[in-house]
Amino acid sequence: MYFGDPARFPYGTKSADTITRFAVEDAGFLLSRGVKLVIVACHSASSAALPELERRLTVPVFGVVEPGARAAVKMTRSNRIAVIGTNATIASGAYEHAIRRLKPDVEIVAKPTPLFVPLAEEGWLDNEVAEAVARRYLAGLADEGVDTLLLGCTHFPLLACVIGRVLGPKVGLVDSSEETAASAAELLAGQGLLNPGGPVRHRFYLSDLAPNFQTVGERFLGEPMGDVMRASVGEAPERMQ
Amino acid sequence: MYFGDPARFPYGTKSADTITRFAVEDAGFLLSRGVKLVIVACHSASSAALPELERRLTVPVFGVVEPGARAAVKMTRSNRIAVIGTNATIASGAYEHAIRRLKPDVEIVAKPTPLFVPLAEEGWLDNEVAEAVARRYLAGLADEGVDTLLLGCTHFPLLACVIGRVLGPKVGLVDSSEETAASAAELLAGQGLLNPGGPVRHRFYLSDLAPNFQTVGERFLGEPMGDVMRASVGEAPERMQ
Repeated sequence: MYFGDPARFPYGTKSADTITRFAVEDAGFLLSRGVKLVIVACHSASSAALPELERRLTVPVFGVVEPGARAAVKMTRSNRIAVIGTNATIASGAYEHAIRRLKPDVEIVAKPTPLFVPLAEEGWLDNEVAEAVARRYLAGLADEGVDTLLLGCTHFPLLACVIGRVLGPKVGLVDSSEETAASAAELLAGQGLLNPGGPVRHRFYLSDLAPNFQTVGERFLGEPMGDVMRASVGEAPERMQ
Repeated sequence: MYFGDPARFPYGTKSADTITRFAVEDAGFLLSRGVKLVIVACHSASSAALPELERRLTVPVFGVVEPGARAAVKMTRSNRIAVIGTNATIASGAYEHAIRRLKPDVEIVAKPTPLFVPLAEEGWLDNEVAEAVARRYLAGLADEGVDTLLLGCTHFPLLACVIGRVLGPKVGLVDSSEETAASAAELLAGQGLLNPGGPVRHRFYLSDLAPNFQTVGERFLGEPMGDVMRASVGEAPERMQ
């Protein structure tokens, strides 16, 4: 069960207070639908809101920062990791903390690269604009001895091709999604909560049925999204009458 | 008195329903502070929400579409006007309607140019990325005989330099802000509501005190914003207890 918040998207430009308020409302919606686990599949929300969600939710909750940090630490040989993300994610310092907890002697270069988000939304994944943006943000990283780049935003894997080309073959890219999925499976197995199998049904709830969302969603998913329903999350009381 | 909605910004990627809901809440906040006139100084909100606001508000309200259309019609000699804006503004067709109401025989080329918004937010107003984006969106417009480009989004005047260079000297740029201010002054004078003079005090209310907003705001305003206050607009009931 997926909840997306296009009505208030993007989160990465907002303050930690506002992101936390939104994330609590979003998780509340999923809980009201009876989920057994919540994955905060947004780096800005994971960075800002995880402690508050852990305090409030009655089911296990985890974010993408910890799994991403784990994957990056596994990959680096030079002990220099670069992290890119939205303004909110980088300002939070969440990745530095998570990486240092795992390996205190790693050097970390953290850099906000906010324009990658609208580039991916626009579908300009590998043209001359994407390349100019990647060069402006990332030129010089390989010279600093960085051998691992953590893609600290859900949108960035769509731009992996152009990012990899600009950085050259010496820098590996880390996408936290697989590590996150593995952690979720492990946690559910450990608690005896895994589904017995059978057909999987995806349900997509969105706070706004914006015309572009399905296009972008299917670009991520790699398959049709099927039925998408509107969810009234974060609406002011006047509208609820 | 200015209300900005960075908590839910940007509006231009959202559906007309959601933009209208937000705009009604925003205007309600300003009315609760006793304003005598509301200017919808956002092209996406003007395009989507003006009829609903006119129905609901007890004070005069107007948007930036009508003044922009008027300025463009005044400028064109070739009778070919191009309009650029967010996805929401262009999808609404509001500019085509407004221009055709003033001059039915004008040819209009309408084109969404959504990446100009985050470019302006990032402060990349005239570098190689801004130029590549402008070329990709606008190349060919001058060849189509267009002599007037309507900048149909509050952010676009910040990029006027690079947009003008890409289009060449035969295309004039229209920014609706001056025409909008003149219309406001005229309306207030006509109703005897103009202030008698004296010192002006600006008050800025924001739905989120996001770190970047003041920087971008002062880039627009050309002077310090002074005191900025947080306004709880559009918050869900759980938060209001």
